[in-house]
Amino acid sequence: MLTVYLAGQIHDDWRKQFKEKASALELPLTFVGPMENHDRSDNIGEEILGKQPNPVLKDEAASKFNNLRTQVLLNKSDVVIALFGEKYKQWNSAMDAATAIALQKPLILIRPESLHHPLKEISEKAQVTVETMDQALQALAYIFEDN
Amino acid sequence: MLTVYLAGQIHDDWRKQFKEKASALELPLTFVGPMENHDRSDNIGEEILGKQPNPVLKDEAASKFNNLRTQVLLNKSDVVIALFGEKYKQWNSAMDAATAIALQKPLILIRPESLHHPLKEISEKAQVTVETMDQALQALAYIFEDN
Amino acid sequence: MLTVYLAGQIHDDWRKQFKEKASALELPLTFVGPMENHDRSDNIGEEILGKQPNPVLKDEAASKFNNLRTQVLLNKSDVVIALFGEKYKQWNSAMDAATAIALQKPLILIRPESLHHPLKEISEKAQVTVETMDQALQALAYIFEDN
Amino acid sequence: MLTVYLAGQIHDDWRKQFKEKASALELPLTFVGPMENHDRSDNIGEEILGKQPNPVLKDEAASKFNNLRTQVLLNKSDVVIALFGEKYKQWNSAMDAATAIALQKPLILIRPESLHHPLKEISEKAQVTVETMDQALQALAYIFEDN
Amino acid sequence: MLTVYLAGQIHDDWRKQFKEKASALELPLTFVGPMENHDRSDNIGEEILGKQPNPVLKDEAASKFNNLRTQVLLNKSDVVIALFGEKYKQWNSAMDAATAIALQKPLILIRPESLHHPLKEISEKAQVTVETMDQALQALAYIFEDN
Amino acid sequence: MLTVYLAGQIHDDWRKQFKEKASALELPLTFVGPMENHDRSDNIGEEILGKQPNPVLKDEAASKFNNLRTQVLLNKSDVVIALFGEKYKQWNSAMDAATAIALQKPLILIRPESLHHPLKEISEKAQVTVETMDQALQALAYIFEDN
Amino acid sequence: MLTVYLAGQIHDDWRKQFKEKASALELPLTFVGPMENHDRSDNIGEEILGKQPNPVLKDEAASKFNNLRTQVLLNKSDVVIALFGEKYKQWNSAMDAATAIALQKPLILIRPESLHHPLKEISEKAQVTVETMDQALQALAYIFEDN
Amino acid sequence: MLTVYLAGQIHDDWRKQFKEKASALELPLTFVGPMENHDRSDNIGEEILGKQPNPVLKDEAASKFNNLRTQVLLNKSDVVIALFGEKYKQWNSAMDAATAIALQKPLILIRPESLHHPLKEISEKAQVTVETMDQALQALAYIFEDN
Repeated sequence: MLTVYLAGQIHDDWRKQFKEKASALELPLTFVGPMENHDRSDNIGEEILGKQPNPVLKDEAASKFNNLRTQVLLNKSDVVIALFGEKYKQWNSAMDAATAIALQKPLILIRPESLHHPLKEISEKAQVTVETMDQALQALAYIFEDN
Repeated sequence: MLTVYLAGQIHDDWRKQFKEKASALELPLTFVGPMENHDRSDNIGEEILGKQPNPVLKDEAASKFNNLRTQVLLNKSDVVIALFGEKYKQWNSAMDAATAIALQKPLILIRPESLHHPLKEISEKAQVTVETMDQALQALAYIFEDN
Repeated sequence: MLTVYLAGQIHDDWRKQFKEKASALELPLTFVGPMENHDRSDNIGEEILGKQPNPVLKDEAASKFNNLRTQVLLNKSDVVIALFGEKYKQWNSAMDAATAIALQKPLILIRPESLHHPLKEISEKAQVTVETMDQALQALAYIFEDN
Repeated sequence: MLTVYLAGQIHDDWRKQFKEKASALELPLTFVGPMENHDRSDNIGEEILGKQPNPVLKDEAASKFNNLRTQVLLNKSDVVIALFGEKYKQWNSAMDAATAIALQKPLILIRPESLHHPLKEISEKAQVTVETMDQALQALAYIFEDN
Repeated sequence: MLTVYLAGQIHDDWRKQFKEKASALELPLTFVGPMENHDRSDNIGEEILGKQPNPVLKDEAASKFNNLRTQVLLNKSDVVIALFGEKYKQWNSAMDAATAIALQKPLILIRPESLHHPLKEISEKAQVTVETMDQALQALAYIFEDN
Repeated sequence: MLTVYLAGQIHDDWRKQFKEKASALELPLTFVGPMENHDRSDNIGEEILGKQPNPVLKDEAASKFNNLRTQVLLNKSDVVIALFGEKYKQWNSAMDAATAIALQKPLILIRPESLHHPLKEISEKAQVTVETMDQALQALAYIFEDN
Repeated sequence: MLTVYLAGQIHDDWRKQFKEKASALELPLTFVGPMENHDRSDNIGEEILGKQPNPVLKDEAASKFNNLRTQVLLNKSDVVIALFGEKYKQWNSAMDAATAIALQKPLILIRPESLHHPLKEISEKAQVTVETMDQALQALAYIFEDN
Repeated sequence: MLTVYLAGQIHDDWRKQFKEKASALELPLTFVGPMENHDRSDNIGEEILGKQPNPVLKDEAASKFNNLRTQVLLNKSDVVIALFGEKYKQWNSAMDAATAIALQKPLILIRPESLHHPLKEISEKAQVTVETMDQALQALAYIFEDN
């Protein structure tokens, strides 16, 4: 049983799709990841700590709770998957990917070929770079594959 | 399932309250922490090793058993919560908080706003600083929150 | 004497300006950083290994030599500064910043306030976030300041 | 040649005295430590970042630059000395002491006997606990003593 | 219950034999290891990523997925066994063995005496060097042996 | 549930007594330790590898299997207890104790007061030093004690 | 100034050539590496410890001194270069390469293209793989290259 | 230039002899080690802290300063040599040897063959075991030997 952290953009339901595909393959995987409700993620600081003096401080407050969640769940993971998409080029996904590498946890990078240039250094540090969720699932399945 | 070490003052029953609140929220948490019986904590050295030559040595003996307990249980934890209160400004709570940070375990600091000045360096190293137990529970709940 | 790695965008001469300012302040600092000649950085793979079969592989080859340089010099550094600008939102700068944090090297983040939202998680992990090079220099100078 | 970080209270000139005594003994020591100008230490956040919205944020800003200085210089140290006094019971000194221990750097604790009870857990984790600066210097001298 | 990674050559069914012997001894062991289907191992890169431009790149692609599997499963292991045989002198087995040692995981090396010279440095770093699978099983059994 | 490694002399049945006492107290402990059958421990090298050329090599062979067992089981432990007695002053017990300390696992040292002088440096590094098995059990019980 | 460990085969004078080329380029490099005198390397055990009972023990004795040298010098290095050649397919070179990777020291692998298949897993873990000494030197020079 | 910690018994002038031999060989070595004046080592606690209540506490006080010296100097070392002799079978030498191993610093063990049995586990963990100081010096010289 492996725990997989699903880093990357939170603007569509790719994690839901990914989990369903993994479930169909009956892989012994548990998935964790960041808050996917974008508004909740942006507002969590003020929701817990109350109104902040300005937008920078609202962001800072939110990021503390988001980083708490990420740090706890990344520490628990055996593999990290980071998905980058055409539209959402989040720096915090790059941070999560680099943190995984520095912690010696293997990283699977999913990105469209069109992003190969700006992601080349992260790709080179990833254990595996693929273009689709299905390829990432094949990589995970290969870990468990009997002979 | 996460294990949470409850560091901080041991002069009231805040840990009991905290556990009850967590239980009401049905969070998958296990709590550990220091000896909360203050007399037992102060006397444990002499209770196990016998009468010591003077008060400093009585304290030294007690601190060994208290540190044994803390080290074992802190090593087992995923998150550390440290509560500081108006009346009890324990240095050993600061030590537990700093140890958690150095071990790369996320720290949630609970302190009244009135203590912001003397606790500013610890607060800045904590992953999250809040003022109430309810806010700390919201932070823990956020780790498990589904989307 | 401290060694400072200057991560971040390589599209203008900010490192040259930064070094001149540091020199004027007579701070005991040595600076290292990535290849700043953008073409050289993009072509280094083919320049050493020869023509690659396609652009993705050209990028992969280049990134290997860029990562070699970064890894060696980051390992030698005491402090990392990462500068993000309006125009160039490089993921590899985020990776360098996160790597520094994971290696427990303090990070000074320089970014315009306009970027506070997308950089909020990295900012929260940085030891210090400032908006200008002069502020970053003041932070470095503060380390050496006599009383 | 060893580097010694002088943690602890910053309300009198004990570091100046300590350095003079070490110098008189011709010990091969370099000393580093926190900002000792209390006002400068409290205001450094606003001096670099400008006026903050409220006192808590002023403190938070200051603590970032103080922690930057501490982290860089503590990383460079071979031994840490923490002095606690009757009047100034700073939590951040306890944090620095605990950080040294967690980094496996030996700690010399200086405290008056009257503080033995509240400092007992830190004292037990310190490599050595003494009551005076002269005793701490004897401990440092012992490291270099020829036979 | 211990997890044992079975590194080494993949050209015969020694792992199957080893697991059967362990099972007969009722040792509380779980076994993991590399892909043993040689063709699958060589082709996995192209099977997931598609046709590569040349044989070197085909190999590079395959090695990424093989290394992903190894890294995940080696991280999970308590003991590593590496078997070297007369015919198959794989460098990647030496790499797996050395990685185990560097991660402070004990290594049991199985090799025929005829290979003692080229394997002498690895043998010296292994916790135990034996010549047969039965001896390696005795070593594992000894860990659990009651008195 | 904690795992406790019982290091120290193997010339009487103190481990059996210790486990029975722990069992009577219903402490949630699992015990591991070295081979206690002295002949088996001395001969294990030749029993697995066959007759060795001389007594030094017989010892070297035995020590490899004993160290394999110790390394695997010590890695799994949360606490280490090392018992030293009047008659058996084993250096390997000192090695196990020091290894535990270096791995940041808390050590409980049991030794008669008569051995205080030769064991003073190890005692000072131990988390707790006691004179009897009952005191060590009280120390373990204190970790679990409710308030 | 960087220290470079030159791992790999010791059957020709490639290290001498490499150092001369580096010297001609005036790179600020210090080189270390294994004993290159093959006979000395094979006999060092008996030269220091005296005649051993059999060839396996002669090898074991030699490997201890060779590993001592490698461990000390590898610990001091910033970069490791491993050269593999057609004729000499040493497992200990693979071990040195893997040890460098596990210690997070960047590895430059030099191997003829003809060896790409058996070295594919090590190549994939290396920071850079090249085919000639000149390419490896260009990689080292790139680390120091000004803009 | 390497730093060598000379652990082991302090009852004769073997360190002086060893340094003279190293000096005659012009090896680039710096030596550090424990206090060799036995009385000074036993009394250092009371000399700095004053009269202690009983002999156990006198020993405990002394051991703190001895361990401070050892920890600082061992941290600075590249290689550790531990000499065990017929007469003085110190447990703290075993502790220093084991600490070196756990810190991944190579250990050279010097012991007469007559002690092979009680030292077999430490010997097996040492990088090299020899019987004389001259052999240990040859091992150190081999690290620097040109080809």
